[in-house]
Amino acid sequence: MTRTSVHLVNRPSGMVEPSDFEVREGDIPSPAEGEVLVKVSHISLDPAMRGWMNEGKSYIAPVGLGDVMRAGAVGEVLESGAAGFQKGDWVQGTLGVQTHALVKGNELTKVDTSSVPPERYLSALGMPGLTAYFGLLEVGALKEGETVVVSAASGAVGAIVCQIAKLKGARVVGLAGSEEKCAYLTDTLGIDAAINYKTENVTKAMAAACPKGVDVYFDNVGGEILEAAMSLLARHGRIVICGAISGYNDFGAIRGPRNYMNLLVQHGRMEGFVVFDYHDRYGEGVAQLAKWLSEGKIEAKEDVREGGVRRYVDTLNLLFSGENFGKLVLKA
Amino acid sequence: MTRTSVHLVNRPSGMVEPSDFEVREGDIPSPAEGEVLVKVSHISLDPAMRGWMNEGKSYIAPVGLGDVMRAGAVGEVLESGAAGFQKGDWVQGTLGVQTHALVKGNELTKVDTSSVPPERYLSALGMPGLTAYFGLLEVGALKEGETVVVSAASGAVGAIVCQIAKLKGARVVGLAGSEEKCAYLTDTLGIDAAINYKTENVTKAMAAACPKGVDVYFDNVGGEILEAAMSLLARHGRIVICGAISGYNDFGAIRGPRNYMNLLVQHGRMEGFVVFDYHDRYGEGVAQLAKWLSEGKIEAKEDVREGGVRRYVDTLNLLFSGENFGKLVLKA
Repeated sequence: MTRTSVHLVNRPSGMVEPSDFEVREGDIPSPAEGEVLVKVSHISLDPAMRGWMNEGKSYIAPVGLGDVMRAGAVGEVLESGAAGFQKGDWVQGTLGVQTHALVKGNELTKVDTSSVPPERYLSALGMPGLTAYFGLLEVGALKEGETVVVSAASGAVGAIVCQIAKLKGARVVGLAGSEEKCAYLTDTLGIDAAINYKTENVTKAMAAACPKGVDVYFDNVGGEILEAAMSLLARHGRIVICGAISGYNDFGAIRGPRNYMNLLVQHGRMEGFVVFDYHDRYGEGVAQLAKWLSEGKIEAKEDVREGGVRRYVDTLNLLFSGENFGKLVLKA
Repeated sequence: MTRTSVHLVNRPSGMVEPSDFEVREGDIPSPAEGEVLVKVSHISLDPAMRGWMNEGKSYIAPVGLGDVMRAGAVGEVLESGAAGFQKGDWVQGTLGVQTHALVKGNELTKVDTSSVPPERYLSALGMPGLTAYFGLLEVGALKEGETVVVSAASGAVGAIVCQIAKLKGARVVGLAGSEEKCAYLTDTLGIDAAINYKTENVTKAMAAACPKGVDVYFDNVGGEILEAAMSLLARHGRIVICGAISGYNDFGAIRGPRNYMNLLVQHGRMEGFVVFDYHDRYGEGVAQLAKWLSEGKIEAKEDVREGGVRRYVDTLNLLFSGENFGKLVLKA
């Protein structure tokens, strides 16, 4: 058996191409003292990955040229040199786009797959769930009775934001890019209104769906939808710019929201955040999300793709074409 | 004796013209029960006045066509029909651009002019001082050792922001539009660096003056200076968009900060505020500012212009050409 790993060899400009990566085969290493060898099971594919491929300062260091592409993943311990881990344990961590990962024990978290499928730790019980939880409740400071607008609402983070907002007694308006996704939002997740941003006039539809204005806008996409939400901002409204789901292929093309002075008019706030800011409260977040899941109060939806790590680029690009439906996961 | 009052009769587009206002003469009214007749002494001229002339939703209702132009002012009570006020008292309130104001007693605040000139209640002890105080310390949440950048730094609000920031142990960088103003900032107010935005490359000069980045940017002007500060934002940096000093003549020409995504990169926050949000804490702010003034720890600078209310438009426009130096005040 060999280890297959996917390495960044070229920094893409615009869309990611298969030629930006190189697939390498090698021997499966053995763990040294303090290390754990993990057989990677499910790999999380996220829009944020696109940003990690860029050079320069961001909220997290770029992936180095030649390095295994960074990725959150879950897997099973094959061999352990670290206290607290043994063969057969399931773990979660930044395992990378590869079949086998050698990771320090203190960088892994054990997960319980007895009643929950492993991929759930990459969706509702992982970074997307935590991003939704802390982004909406802490950065957005959502209060009962307020109106929340969520872009990419059927996505990994957005769908959890929608459901938590409903649980907290908010009016929830979600944007998505197909009728099927919009129907899922209103019929399955039970939000108050869904807007198909590909076919509707976003500003008009949002105004109609938010008669009292927008108290919290959970921003994923910038551009026209951000400006629409900004124009409808309620007094003391909050715009949460969410790091984990910002999948910009071209930062240069970003324009500032022309109407940002509405922050002054409405005494509003626009704040960027990444979930790592809440690292010391992950336990609280996971416990609450697991409770809601087990009680059937929120539901998770994963879109698990087969094909292994060699399918990384093609599968990742489904995110940018909007073809995935639910948290995109690649089986290693 | 008659009352002279200045009425908005046309909503200006771009610069304010004398023809946008009409000066009217009339009898001096008598106060009814609960009212106070005030002889207006000093009128505050503020960039925010330009916004009040525009139609449409803002952080405060526009001045109605035909109405006396709104203005903060101080004056002396001539006749009182309200409990708690008597002839000879000095008061502060929204008295308008006129020689005599009839105001409800509960909309006035008594001020002590025994040791402080009346115009100081329009600068360091008035809205500009309170705006600086709450904007920097509450919205900006300034901490010791941080770097603060202030635009319009020699202006009514900016000069107080600079001085409070120095008192709090911050590194302070101010922008102003002349060598004389820059010298005042460094030599008289003792800030760490001043940038002449008319002659220097703002981005380069700001980068050189802020080697650790910008923790708090107190924004007055938007545009290039905002983008420079945004590009230099430190981790968890804050941008305070200050309502009281936003003197835009043309809201349509505003463009959003192209690099607003730096809020995400740096987990930063951009927040609009107007001082009225802190109305219930004015007493605390004035007491602290008065203490600092009396101890000589901060200094106030007023630019008092003669000529009476008929000179309102010409004097106001000094703000937009940058010709005033210190808080602009018109003697009624």
